[in-house]
Amino acid sequence: MKLLEEKILSEGKVLPGSIIKVDGFLNHRVDTKFLNLVADQFKKYFDVGNITAVLTAEASGIPVATICAHNYGVPLIFAKKAKSDNIENGLYKSEVFSYTYRKTVTLILSKEWLGPNDRVLIIDDFMANGNAVHGLLDIVNQAGASLEGIGIVIEKGFQGGGDKFREMKGVKYRALAVIDSIDGQKMTFRKFDE
Amino acid sequence: MKLLEEKILSEGKVLPGSIIKVDGFLNHRVDTKFLNLVADQFKKYFDVGNITAVLTAEASGIPVATICAHNYGVPLIFAKKAKSDNIENGLYKSEVFSYTYRKTVTLILSKEWLGPNDRVLIIDDFMANGNAVHGLLDIVNQAGASLEGIGIVIEKGFQGGGDKFREMKGVKYRALAVIDSIDGQKMTFRKFDE
Repeated sequence: MKLLEEKILSEGKVLPGSIIKVDGFLNHRVDTKFLNLVADQFKKYFDVGNITAVLTAEASGIPVATICAHNYGVPLIFAKKAKSDNIENGLYKSEVFSYTYRKTVTLILSKEWLGPNDRVLIIDDFMANGNAVHGLLDIVNQAGASLEGIGIVIEKGFQGGGDKFREMKGVKYRALAVIDSIDGQKMTFRKFDE
Repeated sequence: MKLLEEKILSEGKVLPGSIIKVDGFLNHRVDTKFLNLVADQFKKYFDVGNITAVLTAEASGIPVATICAHNYGVPLIFAKKAKSDNIENGLYKSEVFSYTYRKTVTLILSKEWLGPNDRVLIIDDFMANGNAVHGLLDIVNQAGASLEGIGIVIEKGFQGGGDKFREMKGVKYRALAVIDSIDGQKMTFRKFDE
């Protein structure tokens, strides 16, 4: 997505540890108008008329996934990081290692909110090594739900997570911008057909 | 908001510790269509044409605040709970005690994203004792920004947080449903003019 690449180049910064900071439009101060364009772009790749929910993980994926769900007219479901005792009944659980926080967290989702009749689109803001999305996929499988696809706003291609999903049979995976290398503040994007 | 009260009564549950569980439409599985009506209702109380951002706190306030920001055509800003080392530069910080998690957390917001020229509407899903919103108000003051008001979806009136804001001079505070007492599974709502 050309406009997204331009926005990453003009507003993004590279921090030590190959961390790409785009929190001025994606995940701290959130440009809701721009995220409409992101939602429109995902619509080109996924059959959003045929999904029952958008699924993401707490916390930074929630804004973009909320706008996608809102614009597609379906509920947003977000997996929580285990810590609250507010969730009764059965839970789907998946342990994932968080790259950002450098520790293992357990994603949880109440069994009440996802089941075999659901068809979900997973949306997240970032793909690094793919652990969070693997956890979400694990939860979709536990629920017996079906997957429409996985849509990522920014993929850090050099960390390999996205390519693992591209190789998975029967999984539609699209990232709107793939950063294949970082050299100082210089980012190089992977070229592909939109 | 009559429709909200009906939804709380028909879909909500009371858990031990006076916890009101409405995670089927507000903060786990999120009913994006219903939240449009919530955003419309806040519009009756606040001059949303005159704000520069909607502000909330991670994580459960993000869906409703995102839909409000989206529908009002302004950015969403969410304060994070301190834990990531992804945030460089200066930060606004406010320590708050979380009722849900029974511990003190530090809300942080990068100084880049809020300043004296901003006029913000604070939106959150729940008001219990009001600590999280006090933290957000503290951050608004640190930034020198001005406050349009505070909009809460569900207030637990018996915990007193909302009344503290109602008594504050110069602060517009509105909750769309105020639960004044809980007896078993029976909830009693405060009556007020819409």
